[in-house]
Amino acid sequence: MKPFMDEDFLLTTDTARALYHGHAAVMPIFDYHCHLNPREIYEDVAFRNIGHLMLGGDHYKWRAMLSNGVPEANIRGGGNDWDKFYAFAGTLKYAVGNPLFHWTHLELRRVFGIRDVLSERTAKDIWDRANALLATPGYTCRRLIERFNVRLVCTTDDPCDDLRYHRLLAQDAGFAVKVLPAFRPDKAIYIDRPGFADYIRRLDEVSGGEIRDLPRLLSALQGRVDYFHQQGARVSDHALDKVFFTPPDEALAAQAFVKALDGQPVSAAEADTYKTCVLLALGDMYHARDWVVQYHIGAQRNNNPRMFARYGPDVGFDSIADGDIAEKLAALLAAQEAAGRLPKTILYCLHPKDNYTLGTMIGNFQGDVPGKLQFGSGWWFNDQRDGMLEQLKALANLGLLGRFVGMLTDSRSFISYPRHEYFRRILCDLLGAWVESGEYPADMETLGELVRGICYSNAAAYFGISL
Amino acid sequence: MKPFMDEDFLLTTDTARALYHGHAAVMPIFDYHCHLNPREIYEDVAFRNIGHLMLGGDHYKWRAMLSNGVPEANIRGGGNDWDKFYAFAGTLKYAVGNPLFHWTHLELRRVFGIRDVLSERTAKDIWDRANALLATPGYTCRRLIERFNVRLVCTTDDPCDDLRYHRLLAQDAGFAVKVLPAFRPDKAIYIDRPGFADYIRRLDEVSGGEIRDLPRLLSALQGRVDYFHQQGARVSDHALDKVFFTPPDEALAAQAFVKALDGQPVSAAEADTYKTCVLLALGDMYHARDWVVQYHIGAQRNNNPRMFARYGPDVGFDSIADGDIAEKLAALLAAQEAAGRLPKTILYCLHPKDNYTLGTMIGNFQGDVPGKLQFGSGWWFNDQRDGMLEQLKALANLGLLGRFVGMLTDSRSFISYPRHEYFRRILCDLLGAWVESGEYPADMETLGELVRGICYSNAAAYFGISL
Amino acid sequence: MKPFMDEDFLLTTDTARALYHGHAAVMPIFDYHCHLNPREIYEDVAFRNIGHLMLGGDHYKWRAMLSNGVPEANIRGGGNDWDKFYAFAGTLKYAVGNPLFHWTHLELRRVFGIRDVLSERTAKDIWDRANALLATPGYTCRRLIERFNVRLVCTTDDPCDDLRYHRLLAQDAGFAVKVLPAFRPDKAIYIDRPGFADYIRRLDEVSGGEIRDLPRLLSALQGRVDYFHQQGARVSDHALDKVFFTPPDEALAAQAFVKALDGQPVSAAEADTYKTCVLLALGDMYHARDWVVQYHIGAQRNNNPRMFARYGPDVGFDSIADGDIAEKLAALLAAQEAAGRLPKTILYCLHPKDNYTLGTMIGNFQGDVPGKLQFGSGWWFNDQRDGMLEQLKALANLGLLGRFVGMLTDSRSFISYPRHEYFRRILCDLLGAWVESGEYPADMETLGELVRGICYSNAAAYFGISL
Repeated sequence: MKPFMDEDFLLTTDTARALYHGHAAVMPIFDYHCHLNPREIYEDVAFRNIGHLMLGGDHYKWRAMLSNGVPEANIRGGGNDWDKFYAFAGTLKYAVGNPLFHWTHLELRRVFGIRDVLSERTAKDIWDRANALLATPGYTCRRLIERFNVRLVCTTDDPCDDLRYHRLLAQDAGFAVKVLPAFRPDKAIYIDRPGFADYIRRLDEVSGGEIRDLPRLLSALQGRVDYFHQQGARVSDHALDKVFFTPPDEALAAQAFVKALDGQPVSAAEADTYKTCVLLALGDMYHARDWVVQYHIGAQRNNNPRMFARYGPDVGFDSIADGDIAEKLAALLAAQEAAGRLPKTILYCLHPKDNYTLGTMIGNFQGDVPGKLQFGSGWWFNDQRDGMLEQLKALANLGLLGRFVGMLTDSRSFISYPRHEYFRRILCDLLGAWVESGEYPADMETLGELVRGICYSNAAAYFGISL
Repeated sequence: MKPFMDEDFLLTTDTARALYHGHAAVMPIFDYHCHLNPREIYEDVAFRNIGHLMLGGDHYKWRAMLSNGVPEANIRGGGNDWDKFYAFAGTLKYAVGNPLFHWTHLELRRVFGIRDVLSERTAKDIWDRANALLATPGYTCRRLIERFNVRLVCTTDDPCDDLRYHRLLAQDAGFAVKVLPAFRPDKAIYIDRPGFADYIRRLDEVSGGEIRDLPRLLSALQGRVDYFHQQGARVSDHALDKVFFTPPDEALAAQAFVKALDGQPVSAAEADTYKTCVLLALGDMYHARDWVVQYHIGAQRNNNPRMFARYGPDVGFDSIADGDIAEKLAALLAAQEAAGRLPKTILYCLHPKDNYTLGTMIGNFQGDVPGKLQFGSGWWFNDQRDGMLEQLKALANLGLLGRFVGMLTDSRSFISYPRHEYFRRILCDLLGAWVESGEYPADMETLGELVRGICYSNAAAYFGISL
Repeated sequence: MKPFMDEDFLLTTDTARALYHGHAAVMPIFDYHCHLNPREIYEDVAFRNIGHLMLGGDHYKWRAMLSNGVPEANIRGGGNDWDKFYAFAGTLKYAVGNPLFHWTHLELRRVFGIRDVLSERTAKDIWDRANALLATPGYTCRRLIERFNVRLVCTTDDPCDDLRYHRLLAQDAGFAVKVLPAFRPDKAIYIDRPGFADYIRRLDEVSGGEIRDLPRLLSALQGRVDYFHQQGARVSDHALDKVFFTPPDEALAAQAFVKALDGQPVSAAEADTYKTCVLLALGDMYHARDWVVQYHIGAQRNNNPRMFARYGPDVGFDSIADGDIAEKLAALLAAQEAAGRLPKTILYCLHPKDNYTLGTMIGNFQGDVPGKLQFGSGWWFNDQRDGMLEQLKALANLGLLGRFVGMLTDSRSFISYPRHEYFRRILCDLLGAWVESGEYPADMETLGELVRGICYSNAAAYFGISL
């Protein structure tokens, strides 16, 4: 029996261990997509206790606690940090087989050197020891990031954002990690959601233009893309909760835009063509700038109306949509490819049924550079061993695993970098198993190159960001 | 090589064996959903031979035999029991990898102590030995149920049922197993199916009311819920072959009901809003009574018209539907949650692609009690090792496996209780594998508690039925 | 550690090894569906070099090369064979976990006896050694087919085809392998695709009739079925990219046909009923002739418009569709079953989510002969270990694996027969694992019979082709 979470955690063959310790573990982290707050990084915030650090912004943990019947006061509500931490400790044993169990214990080990299993029985002792460390200088958010050998952090930013903290960070010699913005223009696209007109007015203010029609909206967005590019951005990101492509009708889109600005409702057909026109126009901008665009496909958000009214979005009440995606997604990419303006693109799916759809979809539009189209790593609910394995195996079976740009945290937490470690162990174990069962040659030079590529170098080359 | 089906069947680690033999195997069975006939239990029927016992009502076996080219006479038709049993014996070897192969041999072992492999060669000998035992007193249906340490059986009953045999059983000191009814009101909901008006007239007779409009239908259903509750029912059950939620329009629903009662056809929109209104009203009744509601989602039934004309439903001509479910299912649960009247709910899917949809869906609506929303165990075609494993892993990855209410038979057969054993072995093997690979601490106290919970105690607490 | 691809490749238990070497490996190949060119077989073409042989028609390899950023000139374009071969060699290491890696090395071993790993470093040496062999007499396409102990090849042929080369081959004593045509009438069905009217005119010429209306089309198709049957055909094949069944309306279908012949557009409803009518009529013809019909379900073809304009179909720009299939597919089969005219049918799905849909669908319509309805082996993108395993396990869990007709190449290449070896190893390993873990009796006589059945005998009996 292997001990719980020892140094060879998840590594079951000699080859896997050699690949992980010799190649994967030594590579830096290139975190090309996350939701960290650049202000907090700039201000180098500290954490008042381990409850604050671990539970302050982690909707995965909140969700598990609610599933355990923990009262809302001790989750998102007004309870104190200790009560919340204790309630989480009491929840954890039921999370057998859940990535939270591993993430939490990796966090305890890698951040605090605490090797105990968190439970109601150990909670107080862990609380005390961790808090003592958090009171020392090495545990502010910058020091936490550095602790994990991170070279790059791409945050997720609204086009309206002035990127003040990115600019300040760029000039700050006290932090060696590159922090770049990423462009997330969803609010300019979802014409059929509440707040659209207000958002456009805010964009208008930021842009200094007079956004009264679609052409002027596109030119304002171009201005923001240019500004983000100037601040180092090379990545954009779109939530495609549903894939909404329709053959673009610019006149109809323009008319829908004017109606929506005016507060009038738009039809589904108007909304779809508007969204398509803006998405294609943005794609052209990304392609011209040689950016990478990411599509996050298939979330079904804000399912609990009572909780949405109370807390708003992104707090643990989302799940997986199950609609068809293949036809419209192909049409979107085909339109870009036919125009010669298909950017480098990463496709993520939330429903695991879509793994094979995406794994074959990317093959339709490859060319120009190795792995131009990428099938992104197991996202959100799939960011666990089975989910990552399924993504890796689908990609391997259907495309070139060796050209994969690998893992990202996609996280709101400063201590989620062990997810890279988790991914790397899983990757090395998969490769090791293939080698030891005679399915791939035991050529450690090639294997090491593949591992280093997937852990770091492929992404560094793909995103074209010099470090 | 492990011998075929020895005492450590499906248990591949020491931890798995310790958990199974020390914790799982000793727990009683809480069978909260099945299709046993309460009259047969009350009358304590006996079986004329092993063919009758094994093949009398088991559409899984009929289906396998038809796939093997066995003539219909020896399946559902007029052939004699021996010919049918012999034809089944000849089919079994082709069912390599099918749960039937395991179920059949577990039945032979646990019921008759027969350890031979059933084949054409052994069929006569097994037939003789089993029939000799069946002729003794210990093999009536009550004795078979007792043999498996069953504490509770929830049958599946129509609202019109007078529950006569449940009442008789409740007064019968000669049977210690609790037999409770469960409420299955599908026929009152599917307004668009043949026989609806006749069914409502039957309900009318039972209810003694005058069901001429929707309000009076609902109050008749409330009467039946109350009556079932009085007879001990704490569970209801709905077949959602398709998930049909639509924003409820009571006026339209009321009008649809009157039309349908009058024998007029109803439109799809009318049917959907009627079905939604009745389902929500029933949900309110369940919530008020603190019942558990089960939704069985995604069966495509009666696919073979020739066989349906000959035999009717539930005889082996059903398969798996593949439509979308996420959006409407979330809307249904959200409507109940927003009204503060969401009952404890178990969601079962028939299509394995929906495992992740349900595994994340339940997380949107948790609260009040641990595991209020449950993702039900691998159902019907998924009631086999791979299917149960996928359900267990999806639940573990996405929620709290430790709060799972576990297995049920869902069966028409008096000897299907080995499916609980099968489930428990698979569960223990999964946990054992996690422990021995260092993914969960080897804390046998916690693990034992988890196993006993999932095998029995969680369900006992969840359903609130005192035994 | 097992050496790379030794004689026990993919075989991990003693039972698996005994089954493979003792039973699977010795069975001939019954290749009931492929895309080989009968003219090339008749002319016994030779290959100018290993680049020509390996890369001349293999869109799997082209697709991998494009994913690796290889310029189009060295893929489908005008580059020379060596440059293409070298570019492929440089791509291969990135294809870790991809079936191409295994297929390629099985091809090198089984065709040329070359055991080196293909890479940029070894490419020249392998090129030279393989080309030296290709220049000898034993490497023409007939000799390659014979090398793999193939007994039967069913090609894929248009109804208009005169089957000239099949007739010549039937008379050619110099080739012992039976080469039969198979009937693929897609172009007569897809009334809504460009070129339909032209195609019907070509069919008209071949048939010598005057196809001016639907009845005369059907009688022309009957003539072609009869002609194919006369030339030995016993199999037909349909691409159901989407499943299009609708209750047939013959008048509307007839009208649609006349419009389409006249170059007028047809509506979606017209197209669907036309397609349904023709498919049902063909099904009747197949049933009357006791043919097997194959439905290939769920490809999304020609996604890249720029490449389609340049190269046409079937060159590596296809992917997996994800629409629903269960309801319409059941309706199609039910219509045939209800009429007593359901032919033997093999269902293949391209989306792995559909494995359970098909695995249960076939059970609805069994009867007459063992395994009358078949769930076909992992197709196209699923023709790899995980894909084949998933199909085998789904079939085993849901039906009778022992009645499976097994593997086919579905290939355009003369050296793709190692895919049968690949399949057989995977099959034997799965069975071996079940036996050694105590899940199936270690009865080598029964197991050997099952293996020989799935590898060859089941297909030979099912297709009714005497060899």
